[in-house]
Amino acid sequence: MIKVGVLGATGAVGQRFVQLLANHPWFDLVTLTASERSAGKKYGDVVNWKLDAPFPEKVRNLAVSPTSVKGAKGVELVFSALPAEIAGQVEDDFSRAGVAVCSNARSHRMEPDIPLVIPEVNADHLALIDLQRDKGRDGFIVTNPNCSTIMLCVALEPLRSTGFTDVRVATMQAISGAGFSGVAAMDIYDNIVPYIGGEEEKMESETLKIMGTLEGGEVRDAPFQVSASCHRVPVIDGHTLAVWVDVKDGIAEVKQAFRSYKPPFSGLPTQPERSIELFEQPDRPQPRLDRMRGGGMTVSVGRVRPGLRFIALGHNTIRGAAGASVMNAELIRTRKYL
Amino acid sequence: MIKVGVLGATGAVGQRFVQLLANHPWFDLVTLTASERSAGKKYGDVVNWKLDAPFPEKVRNLAVSPTSVKGAKGVELVFSALPAEIAGQVEDDFSRAGVAVCSNARSHRMEPDIPLVIPEVNADHLALIDLQRDKGRDGFIVTNPNCSTIMLCVALEPLRSTGFTDVRVATMQAISGAGFSGVAAMDIYDNIVPYIGGEEEKMESETLKIMGTLEGGEVRDAPFQVSASCHRVPVIDGHTLAVWVDVKDGIAEVKQAFRSYKPPFSGLPTQPERSIELFEQPDRPQPRLDRMRGGGMTVSVGRVRPGLRFIALGHNTIRGAAGASVMNAELIRTRKYL
Amino acid sequence: MIKVGVLGATGAVGQRFVQLLANHPWFDLVTLTASERSAGKKYGDVVNWKLDAPFPEKVRNLAVSPTSVKGAKGVELVFSALPAEIAGQVEDDFSRAGVAVCSNARSHRMEPDIPLVIPEVNADHLALIDLQRDKGRDGFIVTNPNCSTIMLCVALEPLRSTGFTDVRVATMQAISGAGFSGVAAMDIYDNIVPYIGGEEEKMESETLKIMGTLEGGEVRDAPFQVSASCHRVPVIDGHTLAVWVDVKDGIAEVKQAFRSYKPPFSGLPTQPERSIELFEQPDRPQPRLDRMRGGGMTVSVGRVRPGLRFIALGHNTIRGAAGASVMNAELIRTRKYL
Amino acid sequence: MIKVGVLGATGAVGQRFVQLLANHPWFDLVTLTASERSAGKKYGDVVNWKLDAPFPEKVRNLAVSPTSVKGAKGVELVFSALPAEIAGQVEDDFSRAGVAVCSNARSHRMEPDIPLVIPEVNADHLALIDLQRDKGRDGFIVTNPNCSTIMLCVALEPLRSTGFTDVRVATMQAISGAGFSGVAAMDIYDNIVPYIGGEEEKMESETLKIMGTLEGGEVRDAPFQVSASCHRVPVIDGHTLAVWVDVKDGIAEVKQAFRSYKPPFSGLPTQPERSIELFEQPDRPQPRLDRMRGGGMTVSVGRVRPGLRFIALGHNTIRGAAGASVMNAELIRTRKYL
Repeated sequence: MIKVGVLGATGAVGQRFVQLLANHPWFDLVTLTASERSAGKKYGDVVNWKLDAPFPEKVRNLAVSPTSVKGAKGVELVFSALPAEIAGQVEDDFSRAGVAVCSNARSHRMEPDIPLVIPEVNADHLALIDLQRDKGRDGFIVTNPNCSTIMLCVALEPLRSTGFTDVRVATMQAISGAGFSGVAAMDIYDNIVPYIGGEEEKMESETLKIMGTLEGGEVRDAPFQVSASCHRVPVIDGHTLAVWVDVKDGIAEVKQAFRSYKPPFSGLPTQPERSIELFEQPDRPQPRLDRMRGGGMTVSVGRVRPGLRFIALGHNTIRGAAGASVMNAELIRTRKYL
Repeated sequence: MIKVGVLGATGAVGQRFVQLLANHPWFDLVTLTASERSAGKKYGDVVNWKLDAPFPEKVRNLAVSPTSVKGAKGVELVFSALPAEIAGQVEDDFSRAGVAVCSNARSHRMEPDIPLVIPEVNADHLALIDLQRDKGRDGFIVTNPNCSTIMLCVALEPLRSTGFTDVRVATMQAISGAGFSGVAAMDIYDNIVPYIGGEEEKMESETLKIMGTLEGGEVRDAPFQVSASCHRVPVIDGHTLAVWVDVKDGIAEVKQAFRSYKPPFSGLPTQPERSIELFEQPDRPQPRLDRMRGGGMTVSVGRVRPGLRFIALGHNTIRGAAGASVMNAELIRTRKYL
Repeated sequence: MIKVGVLGATGAVGQRFVQLLANHPWFDLVTLTASERSAGKKYGDVVNWKLDAPFPEKVRNLAVSPTSVKGAKGVELVFSALPAEIAGQVEDDFSRAGVAVCSNARSHRMEPDIPLVIPEVNADHLALIDLQRDKGRDGFIVTNPNCSTIMLCVALEPLRSTGFTDVRVATMQAISGAGFSGVAAMDIYDNIVPYIGGEEEKMESETLKIMGTLEGGEVRDAPFQVSASCHRVPVIDGHTLAVWVDVKDGIAEVKQAFRSYKPPFSGLPTQPERSIELFEQPDRPQPRLDRMRGGGMTVSVGRVRPGLRFIALGHNTIRGAAGASVMNAELIRTRKYL
Repeated sequence: MIKVGVLGATGAVGQRFVQLLANHPWFDLVTLTASERSAGKKYGDVVNWKLDAPFPEKVRNLAVSPTSVKGAKGVELVFSALPAEIAGQVEDDFSRAGVAVCSNARSHRMEPDIPLVIPEVNADHLALIDLQRDKGRDGFIVTNPNCSTIMLCVALEPLRSTGFTDVRVATMQAISGAGFSGVAAMDIYDNIVPYIGGEEEKMESETLKIMGTLEGGEVRDAPFQVSASCHRVPVIDGHTLAVWVDVKDGIAEVKQAFRSYKPPFSGLPTQPERSIELFEQPDRPQPRLDRMRGGGMTVSVGRVRPGLRFIALGHNTIRGAAGASVMNAELIRTRKYL
C-alpha cells in the first residue's frame, strides 16, 4: 500500500477524493490537508460533508494537516484538489520534496514538461515524468484536464484515426463544477448562465495537448481545432456535451468505433468496465440517469447522427476531477513511476 | 377593430394568445374554441390558467365554442394554437370558409404556397397569400415557425449579407415548449434530455424556407446549411441557443450589425422597441433575466466571439409562438391582406 | 429461496421493487407483471428504467407476465405496485389463490382484517393474517402505509410511551411520490403545490390504525389525533415532515428516545443498521443528503426543539413504498407466515 | 413629491426598493447608497441588476452615495435595505439627523418605541413616532417585519376577533429571502434546508408585537402563542405558509372573514386592490402562479380546512420586504408624520 494524502480535502473535489480513496486497494489514505485554521482538528469535525455518498467513517478521526510539505510527512503521493491560486506553488514544493503529485488544478497543466493525462487517451505522455526528474525534481507532477475536456477527449479518442480537423462543442455543465458554493441558487435556478470563466479556453488548448504527439520530449499539439461554447445549467452533477466533428465515416462505423473501444490497459481499480458506453435510445444519455455509470467513470455517448453530431456525458467531479486523478495515479503505479 | 378568435385556447400557447389579445388595440377577441366537452361553458370555468400573468377578466365569461368553422361565426381572423394532429384539417376548413388563419402549428408550414413568416426576416413572403387566393381559398393561412427556429432566424437576419453558408446551433430549450404537461418533472429535474422529437429537422428545414427567396411565386431555399442539436433543460420559459456561423467579419462589425438592426416596418402593437438586443456583459443573456425583454418579443444576443460564435435567446411561448402569430397578423393587416 | 413476483413492475414503485429484489438473499424474483400489451416481451425491452441505480441485468430477459393469478404461476409471494384502481380486485384474487400479497396500494389498507404494518411499529398486527385464513383466504394480504405516514409513524414510535394526544404534521413531499409522470414539470418547477389528493386523509387515518392496539382480533385506533397539511415540493426523492407533538418530556429525553430506539427484531436483509438516525446539526436532515441513509430505509430526525417540534425525513419510494413492502415480507417470513 | 433615498441599493431587497420607487407618484428617488467602493459611480454601472423586471432607466446615471447621513443630503425619507450588522447604527444616525427611516432591517424592530408595522394590521402603532420625537429624535424609525411574519399577520388579521390563542406555522420559504448569494445552488437544488437562522424566533416574537395592543405608549404583546418551523425550499420568490390556528368558527365563516376583509385605509399607491385573496380551488395558492397578485402585495390564502388549517402565500421581497416598507411610508405620509 502506498501512503497518500489529499491536499485541500474539504471542498467539493476534495471530498470526492476522500470518498474514492478511503477504501482504495492500492492507496492508504493517511493525510488530509486543509486551511491553517482546521489544522490539528479531526477531519470529521471540520468537513461539512455534502456528498450524497455516505461519509467514510475510516477518516472521521484523522487529524487534519496544514497544506505544506511539512504537514504531509511520510506520504509518497498526494492528490491535489487545491484552488489554482495556491496549487502552483504548493504542488511545486511537494514535487521538489520528492513527492508524486496528481493534480486536478489547472496551474501546471500547460507546462511543457508536465504531463496532462487521461489514461485512455495519452498514457504515453507519462514519459514526461522522466524529463521532470532530469530537471531536478525528486518527485513529479502529473495533471488531469479540466472536467469538460475529459469527456470530450475520451469521446474523441475512438475517432482519432479518422483524421478529423474541426471540433465544435457546446457544453451544459453541472453546478458542482464550481464547487459547493461557486454558484448561487438565484443565479442558476430556472436559468442558464451561458458563460464559465476560462472554460472555453481550457477546452480548446488542453484538448490539443492531450491528443497531441509526444516526440523528442515535447508534446506537439494535435492537428485539429476545437471551438467551444460553455454553459452552466441547473443540473447538480454531470456535464453534457453536444459535439460536432468533421468525421466522414458513416454513422454505423462511428457507433462501432464507440462500441468496440477498449483502453490500452486493464485492471486499474478505478477503471470502469467500459470507458465509453454507447446509447441507441433517442433520448439518452441524460445526466441524472447516466452520470453514475461505471461508478461515475464511464463516458456515455449517444445520439450519433450525421453531421457528425453526438452527445457525450460524464460525471464532472468523478470522471472529470477526483476520479481522473486517482486513475492517473493508478496508471502511474502500473507504469512503475511510483 | 377586427373580430378574432383563438383556436385551442386552453393550452400553454392558447393561454398566451388570450393574454396577448385580450386588450389588443386592433383585434377584438370574441371567440375562444376548445374541445367539445368544454363548448358552451364559460372560458373562466374551463381554463386552468397557469400563466404567471394575471387572468384577463374580460374573457372570463366568454362562452367557449367548439373548434369548427361553425363555432367561430363572425370572426375574420383566427389564431391557431391547435395540436398538429388536428390543425391541418381545421385550418384548411377555416381558410376555405373565408377566414384568415395565423397558425402556430407545424401542419402547413412547409407547403409551397403557405408563407412561413417572421416579420423581421421575410415579410415579403406574405405575397404567397395572393397565390393561395388564386387557388381558390377565400381566406388564407400564414404560419409562424417553430419556436427555436424563430430565435435563430431573427439573430441571423442582420448577418445575412455576409453570405454565410454553415450554421451550427445547440439549443437549450425550456419545458413550456412542450405545453403544460408535455414534460414530466421526473424527466427534467436535475437533468437534461438531449432530444426533442422533430425539433432538429424543423430548425434545419424551416430556417431555409424563411430565409429563402421568393421568386416567381416560389420560395427558393436559402443557400446555407443548418445543423442543429436540440436539448430540453430545466428552465420554465426561454430558449437559449449557442450558434456558430461562418461569418468572416470581425467581432466589432458583427456586434454593430446586431446593434444597428432595424426591421423594415414599425408601429406594430406587439413589436418590441428593439427586435434584437445586444449584450456586452460576458454572462448574458440569461433566460430568467432576459426572456421578458420587449414584452417577451425581443431576441437577446450576446457573447459574440471569434468563431463566429454567439448566444441568442428569446421567450419561446411569446416571441416563439403566440406573439409570433399575433405580430404576423399585425403585419398582415398593415399590408392590407385583412 | 421463496419464489416471488412483482405486480406492476414497470412504474416508479415497481422499478424500486425490482431493484430491491433482484439480488435478495431470501427471495427469488421470477415473475414480473405488467399491462397486457407488454406481456410476453422481455422486461428489459418494455421497461423504461428511470432509476439512477443501474438496471439489474439479471431480469433483463425475464418474460413479462400479464397481471393475473394465471400469469404468476409458481409464485408464493407477490409484491403489489399496482395502481389503486385495479389493486383491490387483483390482490384479492391472488390471496384467494393461495398467494401471499405484500401490497403498497391503498385499496385494502383500512380493511379490518388486513394488517397495515410497519415492522418497527406494529409487527404484532401480523396476527390478523390468521383471521384472514379463518375467513377462507388460502393466501393473505399485508399492506404497508402511505409513504409519508411511514416516516411519521417510525418517528413517533419512540415517543409512544409519553402518551401524546395531538400530532400536527406539515409535509414537503417529493415528486417521485406521484410516479414517473404524475407531476408535470410546469406544475412544480419554481413552485409548491399545497395539495396532494387524499394524502392528508391517509396520514390521519392510517396512523391511527398502525399505532392502534390489536385486541380480540380487532385493531382499536390509537388514542390521539393527527392533523396533516401536505405539500408537493420540487425535490426528486425524499419526504420531509415538520412535526408537532404534545410531548411534555424535555428535549434531552426525546433525543435520547430517538437515539436509543431499537426495533424488536433484527437480521432482516432490508432492515437498516439504524431505523432512526438523530441529527444534532441545526440544518439536518436534508432530503438530497440524507434520503439514502441505511440504503434508503433509515428515517432521519433532527431539529428537536421545544414545542415539541422536530423534522423527520425518509426516502419515499424505498422506506415509503417498495422497501416497506419488502421488509414486511421479510418480517412475515421470520414470523413463519410464509 | 418627497425626496427619498434607498440605503443599500444594490442587493436583492435594495433592487426591489429601486424598482418600486423609480416611478412612485409621491416619492422622488434621488439618493441611492452603497458601499464605499461604489460611491461616486453611476448606479447603472455598479448594480448587477438581477430582477426579472426591467432596469429602471431613470436611475441609470444617478451617482451612488456612501451610506451615511452626509451622503444623503436633502433627503427627507430613507428606505433601509441594509444588512442588520450595520443597519442599527446607520438608521439611528439618520433618524437623529431628522430623516424619517422606513427600515426592512431587523435591528430596531423589537425596541419598545419603534413601531413594527403592517398597514393592514397595526397602523395605530405609528403613534409610537410621537414617543420617539419626545425622546429627542428629529426624525424617526419605522420598521416592517420579517418576510414570513408579514404573510402570517396579514392572514391572521381577519381572524383576530375569534380570540385564537395557539398558532402553528410551517413555512416553505423562497431562496431570494436570503439575498442574491445567500443560498448556494448545491445546498438547495433537489433539496430542502429545514432551518433558517433566527427565522422561527422572529416569527414568534414579531407577530406578538405587531398584533399587540398599544396602550399608554407601550405595546402589550398579543395574547396568543406562535410556534414556527421554518424551511428553505427550491422556489425563487414567494413564501408559502401552512398555518394551524385554534379558531372555532366554521369554515364558511372563516372564508367569509378572508373574503370580506378590507384594510382601514385606502388610496395608498402600493396598496393592492385586495390585501387578501381567497382561493377556493383545492390546489391554490401556488408561489409561481400567485406571488405577483396585486403587484406582489396581495397575500393569497386557500385550502381553508377544519383544524383550522389554511395556506397563506406572498411575495417575500415585495410584500415581505421592499413593498412593505414603501407601503408603510405611504401610510406614514397620509397620517401626516411626513
